[in-house]
Amino acid sequence: MPITPHVEKHFLASATVRDIVIGMADGLTVPFALAAGISGAVAANPKATGIVVTAGLAEIAAGSIAMGLGGYLAARTDFEHYSSERQREVRETLELPDQEEEEVAKVFRDYGLENEQIAPVVAAICADQNRWVDFMMRFELGLESPDPLRARRSALTIAASYIFGGLIPLAPYMVLPSVLNGLWFSVGITLIALLVFGYVKGHFTGIRPFRGGLQTVLTGGLAAAAAFFIARLIS
Amino acid sequence: MPITPHVEKHFLASATVRDIVIGMADGLTVPFALAAGISGAVAANPKATGIVVTAGLAEIAAGSIAMGLGGYLAARTDFEHYSSERQREVRETLELPDQEEEEVAKVFRDYGLENEQIAPVVAAICADQNRWVDFMMRFELGLESPDPLRARRSALTIAASYIFGGLIPLAPYMVLPSVLNGLWFSVGITLIALLVFGYVKGHFTGIRPFRGGLQTVLTGGLAAAAAFFIARLIS
Repeated sequence: MPITPHVEKHFLASATVRDIVIGMADGLTVPFALAAGISGAVAANPKATGIVVTAGLAEIAAGSIAMGLGGYLAARTDFEHYSSERQREVRETLELPDQEEEEVAKVFRDYGLENEQIAPVVAAICADQNRWVDFMMRFELGLESPDPLRARRSALTIAASYIFGGLIPLAPYMVLPSVLNGLWFSVGITLIALLVFGYVKGHFTGIRPFRGGLQTVLTGGLAAAAAFFIARLIS
Repeated sequence: MPITPHVEKHFLASATVRDIVIGMADGLTVPFALAAGISGAVAANPKATGIVVTAGLAEIAAGSIAMGLGGYLAARTDFEHYSSERQREVRETLELPDQEEEEVAKVFRDYGLENEQIAPVVAAICADQNRWVDFMMRFELGLESPDPLRARRSALTIAASYIFGGLIPLAPYMVLPSVLNGLWFSVGITLIALLVFGYVKGHFTGIRPFRGGLQTVLTGGLAAAAAFFIARLIS
C-alpha cells in the first residue's frame, strides 16, 4: 500500500476509536432513553425504580451483546469478502489474463493517458502476479486488505463501550430511592456525558467539537423524548 | 471512477441493503431480548404484559431514533470529511506541486515501475488539476466521493427497518393476554424471523445463507438469554 510521509496530516480515525464511538453513542443514548421512557410510565407503581433498573440492565446486556456480535460478524464478513474477491482476481489473472490486463490499462486510460504510455506501466504491474492482484483489489474494486484480528477486538471494544456508556444514565436510578429523582439526575448527568462524548468524538472525526457535542445531545434528547411520550401514551 | 464491464460479477452490497441490514439486525435482536428479559422478571406483576409492551415500544422508539440519527450523522460526517480532504488536496497541488507530483510517482514506484516509465504517466495525470486531485483522493487516501443525498435516505431506511424488525418480537405480547404465552410466541416467531433475515442477509453479503441464518439466531439468542438472566438476577 503506498504510504507517503505527509499522509499523517490527513485525519483518519483508527478502527478502535471508531468502535468506541459506535458503542458509546448507542450505549449512552438507548438505555438512557428507555429508562426515561419507562420511568414516566411506571412512576405510580411501588416497584417503579426496580422495574426501571431491571429494564435498563436487561437493555444494556442485550444491546452490548447484539452490537458486539454484530461488530464481530461485520468484521468477519469483511475479511471473508476480501479473501474470496482476492481468490477470484487470482483466478481471473490466470484464466483471462488479456481481459485483466485490459482492465489495468483501462484504469490509466480513464486518467487520460495514451496507449503508448500505458503499455510499459501495464507490463510492469502484470509482471508480478501478486502485485497485479493487489492493483486490481485496490484500484478496480476499492478494497483494502482487512486486519484478520480485528473481529474479536472490535466486538470487545464495542460491547465494553456500550456497557460503560449505558451504566452512566442508569446509575442515578440505582442509588436514589425515588424514580422521579432518578429521572432528573439521569437526564442531567447523561446530557453532560453526551456533550463531553460528542465534543471528544467531534475532535476525533474532524467535525467541530461544539457541533459534535450538540449533535449527540440532540440525538439522545430526541430518542428519550420519543420513548417518554410513547410510554406515556400507552400506559 | 474506472468502471469495467465485468465489475458486476463482484458482489458489492448497495448502501440501501446495508442500511436495512443495520436496522433490522438490531431491531430484531434488542427489543426481542429486552422484552424476553423483562417478562421473566415481572411475570408475577399483575400489569406484566403492559410493562413489557411499554418497555418494548419505548425501546423501539429510542433505538430507531438513536440508530437513524446515528446513520444520518455518520453519512454527513463522511461527506464533510471527503469535502475537507479534497479541499486540502486542491490546496496542496497549488502550494506544493512538486511534493504532490512526487506522491503520484510514489504510487507507481511502489508497483515496481521505473522512473522513465513513471514520468509520462505523472505528467498526464497532473496536467489536469481535477484529475490530479481525484487521483490523490482515491489512490493516496483511499476515499471515494460519497453521495450527498445519502444521509437522509440512510437515516429513514435504518429507522424504518429497526421499527419493522422490533415490532415482530413485540406483537405476541400485544395480542396474547398472558405474558408467559407472549414470551413463548415471541421466542418462536423471532427465531424464525432471525433465521429468515440471516439467510437473506447471507445471500446479500456473500456468506453462505445457512451460516448467515445461524449467526443471527445465535446473536439474538445470546442477547436474549443474557437479558433474561440479568433481569432475573436483580429482580
